[in-house]
Amino acid sequence: MKIQAERLLGDLHRLRDFGRTGNGVVRPSYSDVDMAAREWLRQRFTDAGLNATVDGVGNVFGTSPNTGPALVLGSHSDTQPRGGWLDGALGVIYALEVARALAEDSTTRDFAVDVAAWVDEEGTYTSCLGSRSFVDDLPGEVLAHANDDGETVVAALARVGLADAGRATMDLDRHIGYLEAHIEQGPYLEEAGDLIGVVTSIVGIRSTQVEFTGEQNHAGTTPMNRRRDAGVAMFEFAVRLRERFSAIAGPTTVWTIGQAQLEPGAASIIPGYAVAQVQYRDPDDDRLATLETVVSEIAAEVAAATGVMVLATRERDPILPCHMDPEFRRHFTTAAEAKVPGMWREMPSAAGHDPMVISQYLPCAMMFIPSIGGISHDFAEDSNEADIVMGCAVMADAAASILHAARSSTTPIAPRANPPGHSG
Amino acid sequence: MKIQAERLLGDLHRLRDFGRTGNGVVRPSYSDVDMAAREWLRQRFTDAGLNATVDGVGNVFGTSPNTGPALVLGSHSDTQPRGGWLDGALGVIYALEVARALAEDSTTRDFAVDVAAWVDEEGTYTSCLGSRSFVDDLPGEVLAHANDDGETVVAALARVGLADAGRATMDLDRHIGYLEAHIEQGPYLEEAGDLIGVVTSIVGIRSTQVEFTGEQNHAGTTPMNRRRDAGVAMFEFAVRLRERFSAIAGPTTVWTIGQAQLEPGAASIIPGYAVAQVQYRDPDDDRLATLETVVSEIAAEVAAATGVMVLATRERDPILPCHMDPEFRRHFTTAAEAKVPGMWREMPSAAGHDPMVISQYLPCAMMFIPSIGGISHDFAEDSNEADIVMGCAVMADAAASILHAARSSTTPIAPRANPPGHSG
Repeated sequence: MKIQAERLLGDLHRLRDFGRTGNGVVRPSYSDVDMAAREWLRQRFTDAGLNATVDGVGNVFGTSPNTGPALVLGSHSDTQPRGGWLDGALGVIYALEVARALAEDSTTRDFAVDVAAWVDEEGTYTSCLGSRSFVDDLPGEVLAHANDDGETVVAALARVGLADAGRATMDLDRHIGYLEAHIEQGPYLEEAGDLIGVVTSIVGIRSTQVEFTGEQNHAGTTPMNRRRDAGVAMFEFAVRLRERFSAIAGPTTVWTIGQAQLEPGAASIIPGYAVAQVQYRDPDDDRLATLETVVSEIAAEVAAATGVMVLATRERDPILPCHMDPEFRRHFTTAAEAKVPGMWREMPSAAGHDPMVISQYLPCAMMFIPSIGGISHDFAEDSNEADIVMGCAVMADAAASILHAARSSTTPIAPRANPPGHSG
Repeated sequence: MKIQAERLLGDLHRLRDFGRTGNGVVRPSYSDVDMAAREWLRQRFTDAGLNATVDGVGNVFGTSPNTGPALVLGSHSDTQPRGGWLDGALGVIYALEVARALAEDSTTRDFAVDVAAWVDEEGTYTSCLGSRSFVDDLPGEVLAHANDDGETVVAALARVGLADAGRATMDLDRHIGYLEAHIEQGPYLEEAGDLIGVVTSIVGIRSTQVEFTGEQNHAGTTPMNRRRDAGVAMFEFAVRLRERFSAIAGPTTVWTIGQAQLEPGAASIIPGYAVAQVQYRDPDDDRLATLETVVSEIAAEVAAATGVMVLATRERDPILPCHMDPEFRRHFTTAAEAKVPGMWREMPSAAGHDPMVISQYLPCAMMFIPSIGGISHDFAEDSNEADIVMGCAVMADAAASILHAARSSTTPIAPRANPPGHSG
C-alpha cells in the first residue's frame, strides 16, 4: 500500500492545533476544542469518502461505502488533562490514512475500512467511554459518571448538542475486527532499536489494598519493645514486597506502591494505622494470581513479625489481561518484517487501550511505534517523523492483508463474544 | 512528713471536675473551665496560707509567708484536648499538699514552699508558656502564638481579664530550686513493680526530615529497571533506619517515623517525591548526635542503592536533654528508699515537662509515680490511689529534706543560669 506521508503528517499536525499548549495538547473529552476537533475529523472522514457522523456519545465514526467484510480502524482523539500530541491522535489519523490509501489502490479499492475517533478513552468522565458505546455496553451508571467539575456524561452530551443523536455501534454481520496503532509510551522499542511493536496482549492490572492496624501511642514514652507501629509494619511490607516480586517477576511484570499513608501522621505520635496500595501488571493472568497470593503471604509474615494486624484486600474489579488475535498478529508481523526486516518485535502493552473493551466482542490487533525517551502523558511526548510514516505504511499493509484474507476465505472470521479473559 | 491522704485525693477529684468528660478531662488553657479551675486553685492556695494570685499569664502562684530559702513546687493544670485527669493536675495538688504538710509540722513550719499551677504546658497556644513566664523568658513572638482557633496568647489574656495583671517570676534571692511530680506516662515503673521514679534527665529530641526525589512516571509503561521510585527509596530508608538504630540504641532510646508521604500519591503513578520525618529521643545528647549522623549515612546509602536523590535536613531547634540536679536527686532517692525500700528507680523522662525551661535557671528535680498500663494523653489515663498517696509522701519528705539542708548550709545552693545543655 502507498500511504501519503505529507497528508498523514499534515492531518496529525492539524489535529494537534486543537488544544495545542506548548508542545503538548489539552483536549479533554467534550471540551470546546475536543468538539471542534471532532467536527474537523468528521469533515476529514467525509472528504475521504466515508459516511461520517459525530454520534450520540461523541464518537466520530466513518463508514466505508463498500460492503463487508469490514475492519474498524481507529483510536481516541481526547487527551489527558496535560497530554502529549500523539497519544490517541496517531491512531486516529493512521486509520484515516489507511482508509484513504486502500481506497486509492486499485487492488484494495473495494475493501471496507471504517474509521473511528473514540471519545474519552482517557477517562475524563469514564475510561473507554467511546468504545463501550461502540460495543453497546453503556449502562446508566456509566452515563452518570462525572468529570472533576461534577458534570455527568449525560449532561455533557446535552451541552454539546448530542443528546438526541444516534450511536454508531458494531455490526457483527459487517465488522470482522478492530485495529489500533499507538505510540508505545514506554522505552522498549527505542532501546532495542526497533521500529514496530506488534502487541501480544494488553496487560492485566490487579491492585491490593494493604491495611496495617497497630497501636497509636506517645512517641516519647512508649519503649520500642512495647510498640505496635503500623508504619514500621508498612515499611517492612514494602521492602519484602520488592524482594519477593523481583524474584518471581516475568520480563514485563511491573509493580508499584503509589499510595501510602500513616495515621494520624504526626511526628510525635506512633502511627496506629497505615494503608498502602499495591498495583501490579502483567500480560499473564496466572502470574498476576501468583503475585496476588504473594502479597497476602507477605502480609501474613509481616503481621507475625511485627504484631501489627495486616489486612490485604484485593480490588473488586481487576483488569484482566486482554489478548490480541493471533491471526491478525501474523498479518502485522508479516507486514513489519517486509517493511523493516528484523527491526520489529512482539510485546505486551503495559498501558490500557480501547481494545480492552472491543476485544470482548471482535478480534483485535494493536501496533506500536517508538516513543522518544519512552515519555507519554506529558507535553514532551514525541516520536520521530520517519517512524510515524513507517508505522502507517506497516498498518496499511497489515489491514489490506487481513481484508484480503477475509475476502478470500470461504469461512469468514467469526466474531467472538465473551471470550476467556472477559472481566464483565 | 505527714500528708493527709483524704485531703490530697479530695482536691485531686475536685480539680478533675473542671472539664471532666467521662473518665478524662477537657481543660485546655484559657478555656472557661481552665480559668474556673485556676480561680478554685487560687482559693485553695489561699486556704493553705499562701499569698496566691492568678498572674498576668494565667499561672496560679502561691507564695509562702515564710522567708527563704524557698522551693517552688508545682506542675501545670491545663490539659490536652482530650486529656487524662492526672497529667499536670497530680503535680499541682502534690505541691499544695506538700506545702500544707510542711506548714502543719512543727519541725518544718518555718520552711518556705511556693506553689505553682503553670499555664499551657501542653501547648494549646505554645508549650511551657507558664514556666517561660516564670523564668521571665517571654519574647513577643511567644505571646503572638495562636491556638487552633487563631486566638493569640495576648488575645486570650485580654479575653480572660488578665491583660493588666502582673506576672509572678522567679526570685533568685529566694528560690533555690523547683520540684515537680508527675505520672510516668510510660510502662517502666509498673512493669518493674516500682512505686517511685526519680528522674535523671528529660530526654532530648532531634528530628530529621528526609526527602526523596526520584522520577515521577507511568506505573504501567515504565520498566522496573528504568525506575527511580521515591517511595521505594523511602521504604528502604525506613527499614535500614530500624536495623541500624536498633544496633546502637541505648536502654531508653526511642525513634519514630510518624509522618511519611508519597507524591503525587496515585495508584498508577510512580512516586517522584517522598518525605519522611524521623524523630529520636535520648537522655544523652552524644547518642542523639550519633543517631543524627547515622540518619545521614543511611540517606547516602539509600541514594547510592536506588539512584534516588536523598536529602536529610536536621530540625533547626532540637530539644536538648535536660539534667536534673544531682543533689536534689539524692534527697529524692533517700526519701524513696526510706518509704518504699527497693521499690524505686532512677530513670529518664521520655516526655517533656516544665523543668526543661526552669532547669536553665534553677536546680530542678522530678519524681514519677506509676501510670496504669503506661497510658497517658487519653481519657483512660489513671494511677492507683495508694500509689498517688505514697508518691506525695515521698515528695513531702524530699522537699523537707532539701529545705532542711539548704537552711543548715552555710553556702546556699547556687542558682545557675545557662548551664550546659541550654538550647536558647
